[in-house]
Amino acid sequence: MLWDSLTFEEYIQMKKVVIAYSGGLDTSYCAKYLSEEEGFEVHAVSVNTGGFSEEEIKKIGDNAKKIGASSYKNIDAISSFYQKVVKYLIFGNVLKNDTYPLSVSAERIIQAIEIVNYAKKVGAKYIAHGSTGAGNDQVRFDMIFQIIAPGIQIITPIRDKQLSRQEEIEYLKSKGVEMNWDKAKYSVNKGLWGTSVGGAETLTSEMPLPEEAYPSQLKDKEPKQVKLSFTKGELTAVNGTENSPEKNIEILEGIASKYAIGRDIHVGDTIIGIKGRVGFEAAAALITIKAHHLLEKHTLSKWQLQHKDYTSNWYGMHLHEGLYLDPVMRDFEAQLESSQAKVTGDVFVTLHPYRFTLDGIKSPNDLMNSSFGNYGEENKAWTADDAKGFIKILSNSGKIYQHVNQES
Amino acid sequence: MLWDSLTFEEYIQMKKVVIAYSGGLDTSYCAKYLSEEEGFEVHAVSVNTGGFSEEEIKKIGDNAKKIGASSYKNIDAISSFYQKVVKYLIFGNVLKNDTYPLSVSAERIIQAIEIVNYAKKVGAKYIAHGSTGAGNDQVRFDMIFQIIAPGIQIITPIRDKQLSRQEEIEYLKSKGVEMNWDKAKYSVNKGLWGTSVGGAETLTSEMPLPEEAYPSQLKDKEPKQVKLSFTKGELTAVNGTENSPEKNIEILEGIASKYAIGRDIHVGDTIIGIKGRVGFEAAAALITIKAHHLLEKHTLSKWQLQHKDYTSNWYGMHLHEGLYLDPVMRDFEAQLESSQAKVTGDVFVTLHPYRFTLDGIKSPNDLMNSSFGNYGEENKAWTADDAKGFIKILSNSGKIYQHVNQES
Amino acid sequence: MLWDSLTFEEYIQMKKVVIAYSGGLDTSYCAKYLSEEEGFEVHAVSVNTGGFSEEEIKKIGDNAKKIGASSYKNIDAISSFYQKVVKYLIFGNVLKNDTYPLSVSAERIIQAIEIVNYAKKVGAKYIAHGSTGAGNDQVRFDMIFQIIAPGIQIITPIRDKQLSRQEEIEYLKSKGVEMNWDKAKYSVNKGLWGTSVGGAETLTSEMPLPEEAYPSQLKDKEPKQVKLSFTKGELTAVNGTENSPEKNIEILEGIASKYAIGRDIHVGDTIIGIKGRVGFEAAAALITIKAHHLLEKHTLSKWQLQHKDYTSNWYGMHLHEGLYLDPVMRDFEAQLESSQAKVTGDVFVTLHPYRFTLDGIKSPNDLMNSSFGNYGEENKAWTADDAKGFIKILSNSGKIYQHVNQES
Amino acid sequence: MLWDSLTFEEYIQMKKVVIAYSGGLDTSYCAKYLSEEEGFEVHAVSVNTGGFSEEEIKKIGDNAKKIGASSYKNIDAISSFYQKVVKYLIFGNVLKNDTYPLSVSAERIIQAIEIVNYAKKVGAKYIAHGSTGAGNDQVRFDMIFQIIAPGIQIITPIRDKQLSRQEEIEYLKSKGVEMNWDKAKYSVNKGLWGTSVGGAETLTSEMPLPEEAYPSQLKDKEPKQVKLSFTKGELTAVNGTENSPEKNIEILEGIASKYAIGRDIHVGDTIIGIKGRVGFEAAAALITIKAHHLLEKHTLSKWQLQHKDYTSNWYGMHLHEGLYLDPVMRDFEAQLESSQAKVTGDVFVTLHPYRFTLDGIKSPNDLMNSSFGNYGEENKAWTADDAKGFIKILSNSGKIYQHVNQES
Repeated sequence: MLWDSLTFEEYIQMKKVVIAYSGGLDTSYCAKYLSEEEGFEVHAVSVNTGGFSEEEIKKIGDNAKKIGASSYKNIDAISSFYQKVVKYLIFGNVLKNDTYPLSVSAERIIQAIEIVNYAKKVGAKYIAHGSTGAGNDQVRFDMIFQIIAPGIQIITPIRDKQLSRQEEIEYLKSKGVEMNWDKAKYSVNKGLWGTSVGGAETLTSEMPLPEEAYPSQLKDKEPKQVKLSFTKGELTAVNGTENSPEKNIEILEGIASKYAIGRDIHVGDTIIGIKGRVGFEAAAALITIKAHHLLEKHTLSKWQLQHKDYTSNWYGMHLHEGLYLDPVMRDFEAQLESSQAKVTGDVFVTLHPYRFTLDGIKSPNDLMNSSFGNYGEENKAWTADDAKGFIKILSNSGKIYQHVNQES
Repeated sequence: MLWDSLTFEEYIQMKKVVIAYSGGLDTSYCAKYLSEEEGFEVHAVSVNTGGFSEEEIKKIGDNAKKIGASSYKNIDAISSFYQKVVKYLIFGNVLKNDTYPLSVSAERIIQAIEIVNYAKKVGAKYIAHGSTGAGNDQVRFDMIFQIIAPGIQIITPIRDKQLSRQEEIEYLKSKGVEMNWDKAKYSVNKGLWGTSVGGAETLTSEMPLPEEAYPSQLKDKEPKQVKLSFTKGELTAVNGTENSPEKNIEILEGIASKYAIGRDIHVGDTIIGIKGRVGFEAAAALITIKAHHLLEKHTLSKWQLQHKDYTSNWYGMHLHEGLYLDPVMRDFEAQLESSQAKVTGDVFVTLHPYRFTLDGIKSPNDLMNSSFGNYGEENKAWTADDAKGFIKILSNSGKIYQHVNQES
Repeated sequence: MLWDSLTFEEYIQMKKVVIAYSGGLDTSYCAKYLSEEEGFEVHAVSVNTGGFSEEEIKKIGDNAKKIGASSYKNIDAISSFYQKVVKYLIFGNVLKNDTYPLSVSAERIIQAIEIVNYAKKVGAKYIAHGSTGAGNDQVRFDMIFQIIAPGIQIITPIRDKQLSRQEEIEYLKSKGVEMNWDKAKYSVNKGLWGTSVGGAETLTSEMPLPEEAYPSQLKDKEPKQVKLSFTKGELTAVNGTENSPEKNIEILEGIASKYAIGRDIHVGDTIIGIKGRVGFEAAAALITIKAHHLLEKHTLSKWQLQHKDYTSNWYGMHLHEGLYLDPVMRDFEAQLESSQAKVTGDVFVTLHPYRFTLDGIKSPNDLMNSSFGNYGEENKAWTADDAKGFIKILSNSGKIYQHVNQES
Repeated sequence: MLWDSLTFEEYIQMKKVVIAYSGGLDTSYCAKYLSEEEGFEVHAVSVNTGGFSEEEIKKIGDNAKKIGASSYKNIDAISSFYQKVVKYLIFGNVLKNDTYPLSVSAERIIQAIEIVNYAKKVGAKYIAHGSTGAGNDQVRFDMIFQIIAPGIQIITPIRDKQLSRQEEIEYLKSKGVEMNWDKAKYSVNKGLWGTSVGGAETLTSEMPLPEEAYPSQLKDKEPKQVKLSFTKGELTAVNGTENSPEKNIEILEGIASKYAIGRDIHVGDTIIGIKGRVGFEAAAALITIKAHHLLEKHTLSKWQLQHKDYTSNWYGMHLHEGLYLDPVMRDFEAQLESSQAKVTGDVFVTLHPYRFTLDGIKSPNDLMNSSFGNYGEENKAWTADDAKGFIKILSNSGKIYQHVNQES
């Protein structure tokens, strides 16, 4: 045991472990093992960032009881998730490698923060999680735990012991825990900002995921128009009905997932240096980002659009790599927030099976303002001579370069 | 007239004008006007960057004759267009504002270069073009003309005189030129890298283009798989048949345009500071870029992918704004070329009506290499302790920041 | 005259011109000319961004009277200059081309804003300034005037008429204005953020400015230590005495200019596409920026330092090119402001003739914190095995690349 | 021992270790320890990247013999160092955190590459080095060893055993090795691209290094002019005498170090996440970079200068962090190389005690070309109306923004 040398009183204080608990085999094994073999008082906690139904939460709680957890707590972190991360992913139109809305990467950050705060609240000196040693999640979890609570020790039985599923099941059975641990053909992670899907195909480079691997199957085939209203970059209404942005994302997901929109496979670099491939479906995330970006094209200056790309690209990179707590992220957020001052208006979207089109926008801040001049049309704002003077002077540097370097 | 004060000999030398001639009303008016009213010897030239059929070229030539041009020349610039610009747009996965493959912007550059070189070859002291004073093209044309041939004078009757179509038609009629000048409902510009579409809707912010505005209508509905083979970033084969990259783009366009793929509306900033909106369809461009990008995700390092985004974003911006001749573009091209050393392999694409999916890739340089370790799976390349050490040290800076600044 | 067709009442309303008045030959000519030849009611205004003494302001006012201005107003814009621009140049450690603190570029922006606001206040329909057609200032002035007050017309007699100094002097003499217009050998522009110096040498590429061209001559030779205290990035005290940041800059300039510190020649690209060369001395600006940057190296995270460079580089570029009013500048300022949250502490500087050294810093937010671990020294925060694990996993991507691509 | 289970033949093949040998206490301890306690055949190798005199190399060799190394080899890597790294640091004007020419960081990379290639050549299965677990060097060495030769095992006794100097000395004494191991007050690392200096002061944040800590003391006080000639960005002549660039750097260092130029303290982030401080003197590096940069300001376009900053900043960052082998570095090098096509000409520098001034340049490619137009002077290349047209259209986007958003 870890505290053989402690006094009994220290032992009492220190035996609490908070475990990031999903109700699945790995975390159930961890919980049981820590309780039985290491004498911990196990406090199971799940953090809902949008993926769990009431029913699922109840089931996780039931499982926690079955394996003998001292307590179980589900933390509703949907608003926190939106406010702390998703909002900025929308402001930045962040799609990792131009594809992936960072669904899972973003969730893990918030889950880690909620868990470590819970551990501090209940006075636990240990946090356990079920990550393996081969993925990104261990990095995201451990970094945030270590930074926010350097005094709390992290325990990761799955990473340390490298057990097979069969060994875990047998151990649980030997302790009287019998549940249905059949492995789903596809491992699915659902949240407010999208659902990731892994399976045999995503371990190859060449195979797509089959239709049935995606949780949301095509149900609606008739094209449908949706009006998304943004206020300073936030999704404040869907089809004219106002709600909190996080609620609107859920509403949009409800409508659009029936069209099987937003599916793709993300190929990316893990924090640990290997490349990975993961399927996802994220109808609301994709539609929101693309609609928001279109509104920005009408309401931001050329330079805002250009420089936001740098910021967004790095915001996504750092978030993906678990650097959410680095103060540079607050600086980027300040810039992104500032950039949204005029991103207000309606975006008109049409949903089709497997795809959507952006039809147009309407905004009081639309800079494509016909009272000033239309692209390619005659106008009154400047003369032909103005245009010629503009071009002549714009050509100066090129002319000089050519002249000096005698290239022709 | 412009040369009242010249001697006859100077006059003979100087009366040549090369006109960028499309066969349409504006350039026909310009040609006639320069010949009749200004006494120019008009040499009409069209530059084919992929948009013209044999038939269309013949028709342009016929029109040139009807308006009395001294000569007509069509320059085939498809390979030049590919080698000088399109290649780098693919290397950079360039989509302006994440949407537009810069179809027209890129063409104009090459057309200008070909025209000015032609003018120098034939000893013309004047170049005329039909641009208005309200668009990007005048800037792209004039800048390149002025930089490459500062001694050649540019003449732009449409920009200078701001005539209505009716006035132009009447002038031509008065000179005995009667052709069918009916304006198409949608102005279409076709080239190797895509077709732009403008119309009443694109002058608004909220209306999409109707189905019939797009030149390629949906013809094939059955999903079809296509294999695209890249060699050092260039599209060297389609479905296993090798051809020059520019030919492959045309072949791919032939297949994919039947699926009405690659349509969208670009909203962007013009060089002259106003925002504009233009529809486009660019099936081959979109599919090639997305397929190429996927192959890069498998074959480039994380840092190559990250930094290429900066370069591509600016390469596109500067190209769009007519700065093709700035030496920074050569520097960017050198970087992009270098980045393609390992971008070799096959990409599997499935075409569906109005959309396509990227199914996967196969490459000898695929860095998602299962012999080393699979994402999220157990592996032999490092231990749990290695991972913990990695994360611990990766957390150092965050821990110190938190410790020093006592945030919790 | 410009208003021949106006009614008398319109004429009365419209005859006011506000002139950006420096008291020199060019603006004196403009003022007289506009009053005498064009019938304007001339309102002279000077904007002090730190360069003018009481005495100089009085002299400008006297000259304004001599040429018959209806009114003269000096606007004290030192605080406004600091708050709107200089503050962010310090936050960003902005040195254009790694050399020039943008002394004049930054001033012009604030001068333009103050002048146009004054013109609006007094109901003037015209603004006049003395810029030529060959420099940056015309662009900075005109852009800000046109954007903030599109209804006000800009008048620039010097640019339009291209008169020689002699012609201007003779005109003024003919109108009874006789002053000493002897041209100084070096044209000097002084302000809070530095003094620019132009002369015969700066028109060449190879000659440095001679010692005597610089306004501040070497007076102190004994090394002197100075303590600069920053609070959230702002210079709040010099040698322990608190003052407003702008006052502290002036105090520091008073001390450091006696050491002839901060001289150099800036070579840069003008907005109009030609390259220019200008000498400057800016002791306080250089010392403040370098001291501030050193403090940042101790208090910002690696990523803050890295990404600030991008922002600062572009903030400087856009400011230099007169784009201060573009909303992207507000976004950058938000980011820079956020980055300064911990930039608090003292910086120790030693002044020597013509140079200074940065000796060190003391800050409660110093991240070089010996309680955690010293660079290169033994430490307790991690083990040799942690380091090895870190490096092993950090090497993963390189190992895979080498393995896959069989390079050795 | 590490190979108890090997056959004798395997043992013979495998007992070779190549040790990165400096002749100092740490590496002498390692060599002796590996030979005596672990039965290795020790092959000592030093890599000269510009820091060692003939004499010093002889002394290192003598020490190697004294501790019983089987062989000693000094590799002259000065040209390799210049060609592989220093050249690009000059092309990029790379100064980490605007201060440090990356002297040591850059050397370590080349030393690692030379050592691992040597180890492969002599068939060694082990490489040993004397790095501790608290610095950057272990990362740079290990990463390059692991990537280039994943089959070679790395041995680091100092990192693993954390011995005190006294313990090392006593061990060596017990084995009959008695040398003078007195620790210098300042640890100095000398190379072609600069000398680093560490000592008690650099472990604090507030203390500068004393005069005597710097190896090159002030010897020349009389100002001296130096002409540096660059050809495509490379330093091809000093004062008119041609030599290889690496030789020219040494010549310049010989001249300029007598002026005690190029001293400063670098404060930076280590790869392992802590901040460190190190003194350096690098006269030739600083002068070369600043002179080269000045020449670039005259010969590169505005956009080349602007975008090179991004590339250089990241090239330096990645090099510092040991990522030299990442293919993105080759891409950056291609871009930097391309950018140097016109960076040819002379730069005039004046050396003074502790500082230097850049007086000017002379170049056939100088874009500050008076035949076109002088900054701020009257010119013939464009008219006042051209300038006004230019500014009017440049103001368009700002005007529209203001108009739409009704800010005033």
